[in-house]
Amino acid sequence: MLDTQARTILRVHDGISQEVVDDIVVEEPLEIRVNNESIGVTMRTPGDDFDLAVGLLWTEGLIRSADEIGTIAYCPDEEQPELKNIVNVTLIESTRRFVPGRKTWASSSCGLCGKATIESIRASVLPVRSEARIERQVAGDLPRRMRERQTNFQRTGGIHAAGLFETSGGLLLIREDLGRHNAVDKTLGAALKAAVPAVDAVLMVSGRLGFEIAQKAAAAGIPIVASVSAPSSLAVELAADLGITAVGFVRDGSMNIYSHPERILNGISKYPA
Amino acid sequence: MLDTQARTILRVHDGISQEVVDDIVVEEPLEIRVNNESIGVTMRTPGDDFDLAVGLLWTEGLIRSADEIGTIAYCPDEEQPELKNIVNVTLIESTRRFVPGRKTWASSSCGLCGKATIESIRASVLPVRSEARIERQVAGDLPRRMRERQTNFQRTGGIHAAGLFETSGGLLLIREDLGRHNAVDKTLGAALKAAVPAVDAVLMVSGRLGFEIAQKAAAAGIPIVASVSAPSSLAVELAADLGITAVGFVRDGSMNIYSHPERILNGISKYPA
Repeated sequence: MLDTQARTILRVHDGISQEVVDDIVVEEPLEIRVNNESIGVTMRTPGDDFDLAVGLLWTEGLIRSADEIGTIAYCPDEEQPELKNIVNVTLIESTRRFVPGRKTWASSSCGLCGKATIESIRASVLPVRSEARIERQVAGDLPRRMRERQTNFQRTGGIHAAGLFETSGGLLLIREDLGRHNAVDKTLGAALKAAVPAVDAVLMVSGRLGFEIAQKAAAAGIPIVASVSAPSSLAVELAADLGITAVGFVRDGSMNIYSHPERILNGISKYPA
Repeated sequence: MLDTQARTILRVHDGISQEVVDDIVVEEPLEIRVNNESIGVTMRTPGDDFDLAVGLLWTEGLIRSADEIGTIAYCPDEEQPELKNIVNVTLIESTRRFVPGRKTWASSSCGLCGKATIESIRASVLPVRSEARIERQVAGDLPRRMRERQTNFQRTGGIHAAGLFETSGGLLLIREDLGRHNAVDKTLGAALKAAVPAVDAVLMVSGRLGFEIAQKAAAAGIPIVASVSAPSSLAVELAADLGITAVGFVRDGSMNIYSHPERILNGISKYPA
């Protein structure tokens, strides 16, 4: 159950205004520290914060396995000890890959061009090698299955989800957040902590399939990424380069397959237009 | 016209797969420099890059008026001079407020709690003082008016827009980007460059109304922010604190008013539930 805030608002419908109490999704900053050194702040919906911290360290390449994690704990804010908006992750000394001085994960792209950005990721992420296959009908049904398990969307109307599914369609994990990227990091962090093998899994996201989503999937070794919405050019290029099946506009059994269609069974036949 | 990329994809519909050529929205990194010093990289859809750079400097508090801007130009990448992914903004020396060492705009929140985050913004942003009023019917029609002018959405199905409207409903400016925040920065940057008075304007956004959107509106002095989707708790708190009317779920004439309803005419009457 994610945090929501009850608030009195004015609802206008059919020309009539009335005060109602509405559930609004909570947004609070989370500061993530590694070995007590701050590496950045993300605005997130409170809940599953340890998953978020672990997922973000993983998808940003600061850790590569759960074995590298020592402890995860909230740091008390001295002035307001009841707040839980700082998480500290200690890394096992012998395996730590963390580079002090890396102050943010927001600028993982190099700034020069998309190709160079992809090159810099290829330097640190291996292409996905996976024999995973999914039936087209199963893939088309993933949005419905995810929506069924989204506990917060109905109440707030404004929360993203990321789900990790088996290729048979079974739900492995789902996490929610008002931010698409946070939802993915929470889900992948939970998977790393629970030793769920991402290499056989399908990542379903409720929003767009942008570059950063593809980057996170690549870092986690996910072979199939599906979205209810549109991908970006750079997301498709990264997926194509790294062996990831990118699927967009998954709605009512229809979908667009942008890269590596061989993993979608019954999806690779061609008919003349 | 924003950049799109034609790409052959596999479209699955009614159980039939066929290869089609699809328009995909382009995503490329943009590095922004101030006085030749890099302040960060944002993933954006190419187009209106100078608006984006100016808007981002404005909404992040690095400039407060167009007078502070000297020149805006693309920097050639020495290896690939045809690329236009670096923009340099020189600021007028006498007014420059830029603090070297500020490496990113991603962590504008303080990391401790939402209240502290809002306090830190209040320290630099004045409350909005505006007599702007908008008829409820006009507000309810803004999504349709914006969609009519969105040139890229139909082709790609995946692009956000931000529009600046007069309270009479007239469109002042619209900009598109695959990122919600970029679309807002492009629109506000264009407004600053063209001396459009934001204090009488309505900002309409195609996505969620999160904290950063509210923060950008506050920095620009926008009195009314409307969204087709849900707001976050922190966005509503910031809007309430800074005198901004926050409206969400604007759809088919219905809407939710979260703060300062006095600016929505015919929207402040109350009926028992």
